[in-house]
Amino acid sequence: MKLIVKDVDIATGDVPVVILNQDDAACLDIHHNDRVLVKRNSHSIIAVVDIGESKKAVPRGHIGLFEEVLTAVKTKQGDTVTIALEKKPPSTTHIRNKLDGAELSKTQILEIVRDIVQNKLTDIELTSYVAANYTRGMSMREVIAMTHALKQTGAVLHTKAPVVADIHCIGGVPGNRTTMIVVPILAAAGLTIPKTSSRAITSPAGTADTMEVLCNVNLTIAQLERILHKHKGFIVWGGAVNLAPADDRIIKVEHPLSIDAEGQMLASIMAKKASVGATHLLMDIPYGAGAKIATYGEAQHFEHMFMNLGKHLHMEVSCMLTDGSQPIGNGIGPALEAKDCLWVLENSPEAPRDLKTKSLEMAAAMLEFSGRCKRGAGLHLANALLESGEAHRKMCDIIKAQGKKTDNPNNISVGKKTYTLVASRTGKLRSIDSSIITKIARLAGAPRTPSAGVYVHKHRNDTVRARDPLLTIYSEGDDSLAFAREFAKSGAQVIGIDIS
Amino acid sequence: MKLIVKDVDIATGDVPVVILNQDDAACLDIHHNDRVLVKRNSHSIIAVVDIGESKKAVPRGHIGLFEEVLTAVKTKQGDTVTIALEKKPPSTTHIRNKLDGAELSKTQILEIVRDIVQNKLTDIELTSYVAANYTRGMSMREVIAMTHALKQTGAVLHTKAPVVADIHCIGGVPGNRTTMIVVPILAAAGLTIPKTSSRAITSPAGTADTMEVLCNVNLTIAQLERILHKHKGFIVWGGAVNLAPADDRIIKVEHPLSIDAEGQMLASIMAKKASVGATHLLMDIPYGAGAKIATYGEAQHFEHMFMNLGKHLHMEVSCMLTDGSQPIGNGIGPALEAKDCLWVLENSPEAPRDLKTKSLEMAAAMLEFSGRCKRGAGLHLANALLESGEAHRKMCDIIKAQGKKTDNPNNISVGKKTYTLVASRTGKLRSIDSSIITKIARLAGAPRTPSAGVYVHKHRNDTVRARDPLLTIYSEGDDSLAFAREFAKSGAQVIGIDIS
Repeated sequence: MKLIVKDVDIATGDVPVVILNQDDAACLDIHHNDRVLVKRNSHSIIAVVDIGESKKAVPRGHIGLFEEVLTAVKTKQGDTVTIALEKKPPSTTHIRNKLDGAELSKTQILEIVRDIVQNKLTDIELTSYVAANYTRGMSMREVIAMTHALKQTGAVLHTKAPVVADIHCIGGVPGNRTTMIVVPILAAAGLTIPKTSSRAITSPAGTADTMEVLCNVNLTIAQLERILHKHKGFIVWGGAVNLAPADDRIIKVEHPLSIDAEGQMLASIMAKKASVGATHLLMDIPYGAGAKIATYGEAQHFEHMFMNLGKHLHMEVSCMLTDGSQPIGNGIGPALEAKDCLWVLENSPEAPRDLKTKSLEMAAAMLEFSGRCKRGAGLHLANALLESGEAHRKMCDIIKAQGKKTDNPNNISVGKKTYTLVASRTGKLRSIDSSIITKIARLAGAPRTPSAGVYVHKHRNDTVRARDPLLTIYSEGDDSLAFAREFAKSGAQVIGIDIS
Repeated sequence: MKLIVKDVDIATGDVPVVILNQDDAACLDIHHNDRVLVKRNSHSIIAVVDIGESKKAVPRGHIGLFEEVLTAVKTKQGDTVTIALEKKPPSTTHIRNKLDGAELSKTQILEIVRDIVQNKLTDIELTSYVAANYTRGMSMREVIAMTHALKQTGAVLHTKAPVVADIHCIGGVPGNRTTMIVVPILAAAGLTIPKTSSRAITSPAGTADTMEVLCNVNLTIAQLERILHKHKGFIVWGGAVNLAPADDRIIKVEHPLSIDAEGQMLASIMAKKASVGATHLLMDIPYGAGAKIATYGEAQHFEHMFMNLGKHLHMEVSCMLTDGSQPIGNGIGPALEAKDCLWVLENSPEAPRDLKTKSLEMAAAMLEFSGRCKRGAGLHLANALLESGEAHRKMCDIIKAQGKKTDNPNNISVGKKTYTLVASRTGKLRSIDSSIITKIARLAGAPRTPSAGVYVHKHRNDTVRARDPLLTIYSEGDDSLAFAREFAKSGAQVIGIDIS
C-alpha cells in the first residue's frame, strides 16, 4: 500500500516506529505492534506500527514516520512510501518459549540479544523476555550463553598481557569508591587493569562520575588500548566504549518495576569483564541492612554463582564478602568522593581510614590471587606501594593520560551552600542507614551536580558529643539544599543516624 | 520545572505520553518511563516520559505533548507548562509482587484492572503483569477476583428476567456460527438471551462480523435493554458496549507473542457473561487437530475450570465438548456464514446439516438445563421451534430491531471473483485442516471484506469423485483471489484436504 509521509518529528532511539491511521490499519489487517517494511526507492527499514487514534494527526492515506525511519528510507514530509506486513523476528518465538518455561540454546539467546542491540524488539517483547528470565529463572547454561552473547554483540578491548586483572563491586554502599585507590596500586605493582565503570543510576555517584571530576572518562577503545599499554591501567566510563550494549536496553525495561533478574545481572557483569579480556576478577560483595544484598547467606549465594560462572568462562574469580551496613569513606557525591580517594593516595591525614583499609585489603587480595606476590605478602606490598607514593604517582599518570582536569584534592570545589546537622546529645553512634544518606545526597544534587553531596563526620561505634557535627550537606542551589536539609532534619532516627 | 509546549500531533489512545529533551531529563533526574504531573493553571494530568534522542525534535526547555495531554491540560503549542516527578501508582507494586510469585488480593487485582482501564500503566508494566500471570499462573481466587474486577470497571446490562441464558464458544473452528441459530430458537422459546459477541482477530469471521452482514451490531446499552425487553434476545458486538474494557488493553500486549494466560482468558469470558447478568451459561468447547484446544483431556480441563468458576460466581454452567477437527457449516467468511445461518433458520435444502444438528443440540441442552423443558424433551422442542418457522420469525424480529440490512440469504452478495478447487481423483475425504481453510479465507479477504471467504463443498468422510468441487474461493479483488488460489492450489495435502 502507498502512503503519504508525515514527519512526526520524534526520535526515541528505540525500535523505529510508524503511525498508521486506524481505518487504514483495519483495512490492511495490521494491528498495534505489528511490523511493516517501509520502502522508498531502494531504501527500506522494518518498523513497528502504532495506531493513531486521532484522525487529525494521521489522516487516512498518510503515515507518520519517526526520525529513525525518515533517515533510514531517505524520505521527507509529503513523499510517498510503500508498506508491507513483515514477519516477527524469530527471536520472538524464543521469547515465547522462554515464557513457557523452556531452556533456551546458545544460538537462540544470541538471536535475542542481537535483536535487542539492533532495536528490533518492542518494549512488549523485551519486557516479556526479561519477565520470563525473572520468573522462570535462567539455568547456568543460559547465563553463560547470555554472557557470551552480550560480549559478542559489543565492542572488545585487545591486550596482549597474559594476566589481566579486573575488580567489581556489586554496589549499593554509598562512598565505596575503592576502585580509584585499588587500580593505581595494582597498576603500580605492574598488573594490567583496564577498569570500565558505570555512572550512577540510583546512587549519589558511580565510579565514572567520580573519576570524571579528575579527568575525562569518555575515551575510545583505541585510546584505551594505548593508555593500557603505557600505564597498565585506566578508569573510564564503560558506556562510552559500547561494551555489552544490549544491557542498556534491558535495564530500561527493568527500571520501571525495579526487576533485576539474577541471571541477567550475572551475565551483564561477567560480559563486561570478558569484553576487556579479564583473566582474574576480584568481586566485592558488600552485604548488610541498606545494601543491595541484605544477608550473609545471600552474599554467599552470589559468591557461589560468580565462582561457578568464572569456571565456565575460564576466568579466575575471587570474592570478598564485606561489611555493607554503613557508608564507606566520608564523602558521598562525585567531588567529595574524589577528594577522599586522592587523600588516601596522598597519605593525607584527611584520608578516611575505612576506605583506605578496605582498598588495601582488596589490592592485597588481587596481588596474591593473580600470582603477583606470595600468599600472605599482599597487604605488605599494597601498603608499600601506597605509602611510598608509587600508587599516587600512577594515579596522576592515569589522570594525565585520560585528559587531566585536576589531581589536587584542594582544587576540587564542593557545593557553596552548606548545612551541618549536629548531634542533639552525647552517646555512641549506633547506626547510619545507607539508603537515607543516599537520598540526602541525591536531594542535594548528586550526581548531576558533581560538587553536591554529603560529608559524613561520624561512623558506626564512634563516640558523639552533643553539638558534634554528624553530617554536612553540600549543594549549589538554595532549593536543593532546602530539600536535602528538610529531609535530613526530619529527625535523627528518620535520617538513619541512631545515637544511644 | 517550566517547559515550552510542542504539539507533537499524535494520539495513541494508550497511556498519555510526553517527550523530554535528554539533557533536561538528565538534569531533572527523570528516566524513560517515569511519570510526571503536567500542569497548566488548574488543569493537570499524569503522563509517562519518553526521552527524545534528537535535539531537533524536542530542544532543551521544551516538552513534546501527545494529544491526550494537550487536551487534558487545555494547552497548545508555545504555551508554558510545569512538570514534577510523580510516584508510580500502587498497582505497580502489586505487579512486582506477582512477578515474585505472590497471590494477589481482590483489592490489589481491582487496583491493577482499574489502572489498566484508566490507561495509567505503561506497556512495560502491563506486559510484566500479563507475563507474571502467564508464568506464575493464577489461583482460582485470583481468577474470581479478576472476573469481578473486569465486570466492575465496565458497563453492565440490566434485566429483570429471573433466568438469563448465555452461550459461548471457545472458538478456533471456522464456520461454527451456531450462535445465530441458537439465540433465535431460545428467544422463541421465551428465554432471555442477551448475546454479545466478538469480531474476528485471527479467524475469518466472528459472530459480530457475520451478524453485521444482516444488521447493525453497534448498539448502546439503553437500546439493548429495550430490544431485550421486547424480543428476549439480540446478537451484537460486545466491543461497542464497553463490557470488561480492560480486556482490550490486555489483549493488545498479549497479541505480539500470542500469550493467552489461562486465568485471564477464563476471567475475561466469565466477566462478560456476568456483565449481561447471565444466570445460565452453556459453553461449547470444541477440540481436535486445528482447533484452539487440541485434545479431549485439555477440553475436560477447561470444562472443570468453567464449572468451578461458575460455582463461585453463582452462575449455572454447563459444558459441551464437541468435535472441532474440521470446519462446521459450508460457508467460511461473514457473508457466506450469514447465508448458512439463514438457510438453517428457513429450513432450506441448502442448509448445512452439521451446523443445523449442532445448533439444535446446543439449543436443546440450554432448554433443558435452564428448566425451560424437562430433561430429554429439549431436542424435540428445539426442532419444533425451528421447523415451525418460529425461530426464523424471531431472527427476523431481532434483525429488524437492531437495524435491518437484509434477512434474505439470496440478497447477500458474495465475492465476484471466484475460483473452485476440484478433486484430482475419486476417493473418500479423510480430513480438512481448519487452520488451512482459515488461512485461505483470510487471504481471500475475510473478514475485512465481508463478502470474501471460502465455501466448503465436502466434509470429512464424504465420497468424492474426480473433478468434484472441493472448495470455492470468493474474493472481490484479483490480487486477493490470486493469493488465496495459489495457497489453496499448492497441493491437496498442503491445503489440508486429504482424499484416500
